Amino acid sequence: MDSKSIDRPYLVDCLQYANWSETIFAEMREGGVDAVHATIAYHENFRETVRNICEWNRLFRTYGDMIVHAKTARDIAFARESERTAILFGFQNPAPIGEEIELIELFCGLGVRFMQLTYNNQSLLASGYLETTDSGITRMGREAIAEMNRVGMVVDMSHSGELSTLQAIEVSNRPIAVTHANPASWRPTPRNKSDRVFSALSETGGMIGFSIYPNHLKDGSNCALDEFCRMVAGIADKYGVDMLGLGTDLCQDQPDEVVNWMRRGRWMRDESAGGSPAAKAAFPRQPDWFASNRDFRNIAAGLRSVGFSKANVDAIMGGNWMKFFKSAFGE
Amino acid sequence: MDSKSIDRPYLVDCLQYANWSETIFAEMREGGVDAVHATIAYHENFRETVRNICEWNRLFRTYGDMIVHAKTARDIAFARESERTAILFGFQNPAPIGEEIELIELFCGLGVRFMQLTYNNQSLLASGYLETTDSGITRMGREAIAEMNRVGMVVDMSHSGELSTLQAIEVSNRPIAVTHANPASWRPTPRNKSDRVFSALSETGGMIGFSIYPNHLKDGSNCALDEFCRMVAGIADKYGVDMLGLGTDLCQDQPDEVVNWMRRGRWMRDESAGGSPAAKAAFPRQPDWFASNRDFRNIAAGLRSVGFSKANVDAIMGGNWMKFFKSAFGE
Repeated sequence: MDSKSIDRPYLVDCLQYANWSETIFAEMREGGVDAVHATIAYHENFRETVRNICEWNRLFRTYGDMIVHAKTARDIAFARESERTAILFGFQNPAPIGEEIELIELFCGLGVRFMQLTYNNQSLLASGYLETTDSGITRMGREAIAEMNRVGMVVDMSHSGELSTLQAIEVSNRPIAVTHANPASWRPTPRNKSDRVFSALSETGGMIGFSIYPNHLKDGSNCALDEFCRMVAGIADKYGVDMLGLGTDLCQDQPDEVVNWMRRGRWMRDESAGGSPAAKAAFPRQPDWFASNRDFRNIAAGLRSVGFSKANVDAIMGGNWMKFFKSAFGE
Repeated sequence: MDSKSIDRPYLVDCLQYANWSETIFAEMREGGVDAVHATIAYHENFRETVRNICEWNRLFRTYGDMIVHAKTARDIAFARESERTAILFGFQNPAPIGEEIELIELFCGLGVRFMQLTYNNQSLLASGYLETTDSGITRMGREAIAEMNRVGMVVDMSHSGELSTLQAIEVSNRPIAVTHANPASWRPTPRNKSDRVFSALSETGGMIGFSIYPNHLKDGSNCALDEFCRMVAGIADKYGVDMLGLGTDLCQDQPDEVVNWMRRGRWMRDESAGGSPAAKAAFPRQPDWFASNRDFRNIAAGLRSVGFSKANVDAIMGGNWMKFFKSAFGE
């Protein structure tokens, strides 16, 4: 893969939460990554999220030869032309907007392009997949989806419960995304998505980003590339290729405190978080075929090996996300 | 003046702080106003300024047939094509950024295009015109100007002291603006600007927006249109036409509490604000030839009457600001 050629197909990863550094940005360039959806908030409130954006602005200044903030598909094309990786902002939780719906437009103005309605637990907008009872989309959730539709912020239901996810697909008048998850039929966990969700996504122009976070993989860290690619092929057989992309959930170089913080948030006092003792939670080891942004070529090769055409590999590796972005963000 | 024709010259007012309403927006349309620099913060802190922006977003939604937020000269052209008035955001005081220089870029992302370094009093960045001793541009002020230059936010020195203003012109590597003031030689008040300031502005590609706030006018509320236009002609004779524009400082429909709040800010406890008893401060009566956004045609006619060519009237009424915006904001 030649990262210098601007004729090559787009390579887009629709979810990462790395411990961002010069090393990681250099690996993005080495791997020819055109765009990454970067999580900029989990549990942060409004003011803390603003600070995270300021910190990203500092990274854009310092590493302006490798990364650039993107708000549109056109910005991603510009990033590629200037041989840089476009960074798209997203929230994994609606904590930054609190109870103020107008902050959706405010954050959209600051370039935030994705928001999960929930992160594992109940939010003001919907239910996370760990709740016993799924509230579905709440009253505020319906207003928030309408506002996100209006301003062009993608509804992301990766960590949401089944009912909430299905209702979000139904309520939203724009296609939604599950930026990082796999089929529950392949790796049975409530964090992965059911056939019903895949089916509803495919019927509405939605997108799925396949995750390479070991907890979402069959055989976890030992999942073989071929196994992963066969799973993708199975989904393609059932639902077509158009809705398929990547959302690796790469959390490169993060210390284990971070996964505990992700799960505990700001109210979980006991040691049980996400069903496992949070004090002991640790980031799982990545599969050997995907350890960093340099390894996307392995996935592309793996997809070819299981029978995808060159055009379909290109679509899954980034083309489909680019099409989705064009319509979701506007030009 | 035909507000429907898009061939007509631009009409730009580079400072208003009206009590915004449907009536005022309708008057902007009636008056053929293409762009208004609207003050969105005086003493508001960061969070309050965000709230003001949310309130403006509400106005843009509600009155989207009359007004539209503009961040670039191109946005103003688009506003004109769609028969709406472009609203540019500006601060009259650096209070919204507090001590955080990175909030300059953040607000720039939200469309803030002007910031006064001071409002009457000492700020963290420079001195206001009411201070006995002018600090000049402070250490933080130098960094802030460099950052404003970098991101494309206009340095506005309308309410600043003489030394601070001259130093801002010198320190800034982009032309600055005095968006709303008149020559002190015409109406002697330290709020108006000296020949030295006019001269320095003209040598650096800066801009002056002539004010129609009565306290800045010879004879105050009774200033005749002809008197005002002769003053403009005198400045044009000395410094040329290119740096001249309007910044009317129209505060239409504001209750008198607002002028007291403007002057007192959040620390002035006694009754002396701005040299006059603040408790009694009131908005002065507008000259009869400029009471609202419908009245710009009077100024254009007055400028013609004192001998300006049609082309020069067009330049002063908006063409010069548009040229300045193109370079100050980028396209």
